[in-house]
Amino acid sequence: MITEAEHREAQRYAAERLGAAGIVLTDEEAAAIEVADFGLGRLRETGLQILVYVNTDRYCAKELVLYPGQLCPEHRHPPFDGMRGKEETFRVRAGGVRLWVGDDELALGPGEQHTIPPDTLHRFQAGPEGAVVSEFSSASRDDLDVFTDPAIRRAPEVG
Amino acid sequence: MITEAEHREAQRYAAERLGAAGIVLTDEEAAAIEVADFGLGRLRETGLQILVYVNTDRYCAKELVLYPGQLCPEHRHPPFDGMRGKEETFRVRAGGVRLWVGDDELALGPGEQHTIPPDTLHRFQAGPEGAVVSEFSSASRDDLDVFTDPAIRRAPEVG
Repeated sequence: MITEAEHREAQRYAAERLGAAGIVLTDEEAAAIEVADFGLGRLRETGLQILVYVNTDRYCAKELVLYPGQLCPEHRHPPFDGMRGKEETFRVRAGGVRLWVGDDELALGPGEQHTIPPDTLHRFQAGPEGAVVSEFSSASRDDLDVFTDPAIRRAPEVG
Repeated sequence: MITEAEHREAQRYAAERLGAAGIVLTDEEAAAIEVADFGLGRLRETGLQILVYVNTDRYCAKELVLYPGQLCPEHRHPPFDGMRGKEETFRVRAGGVRLWVGDDELALGPGEQHTIPPDTLHRFQAGPEGAVVSEFSSASRDDLDVFTDPAIRRAPEVG
């Protein structure tokens, strides 16, 4: 669980970082930025801020914003609705991330991208400047993500 | 057909507009920007500059760059490979476009987006500032696009 104040601050941070990367948001979008602490209550350390542009039954596009050093913990996207699991491409817009996919480790900076196959364990962590990452993918069902840490709860709770 | 000089200038313009919108490209990407004149030989009037980030058998992401007043002519994306036609979301990053979809006409500015259903006639034209538009979609097969103007050839020829 995160506090209302943490939630507000994380939304403000994400909107500010997106703006600095030249990404224009509507007020409704800024207010709809999802703040995920994965149920661990250590948002700045393990968490993610997410703006979903579109998510149809075929494709999805999001912006991901990370605090400096913030980690999106190891998970995979299993098959659903008769489709292979979600396949996704991360493209760094600003800052940098380290990305672990299966046994590979990559460092991505602005203008660099990588595609993660379906149902493959991966995690990523922002560098000291934080990160803005565009995610292009097949249809997204975050609620079905399988995390390695059994303590993780994907659905955010703000209290 | 367009000349080598027109092609080079259109790539330069597109890379410059993307940069001004905060979008970082690799040198390889800048050199791979597609310049489409649709076989009409009037690029500044009817044409499109395209950077494809990723195009798998499931999803696609591109940036579209338009000169001031440049028109992407009416077309639709028919079914292929047993799938519904391409479904696509346009999100304006910079400048503005007028978008015609079926009987609807919309004006989109920075931070505004619209999703075009499969196999639906549409066209779009940049305003006086030109436009940078992100396109998120299902898998893309530009070579299968059906244009209303029978004179149009989708595959670019540079001579």
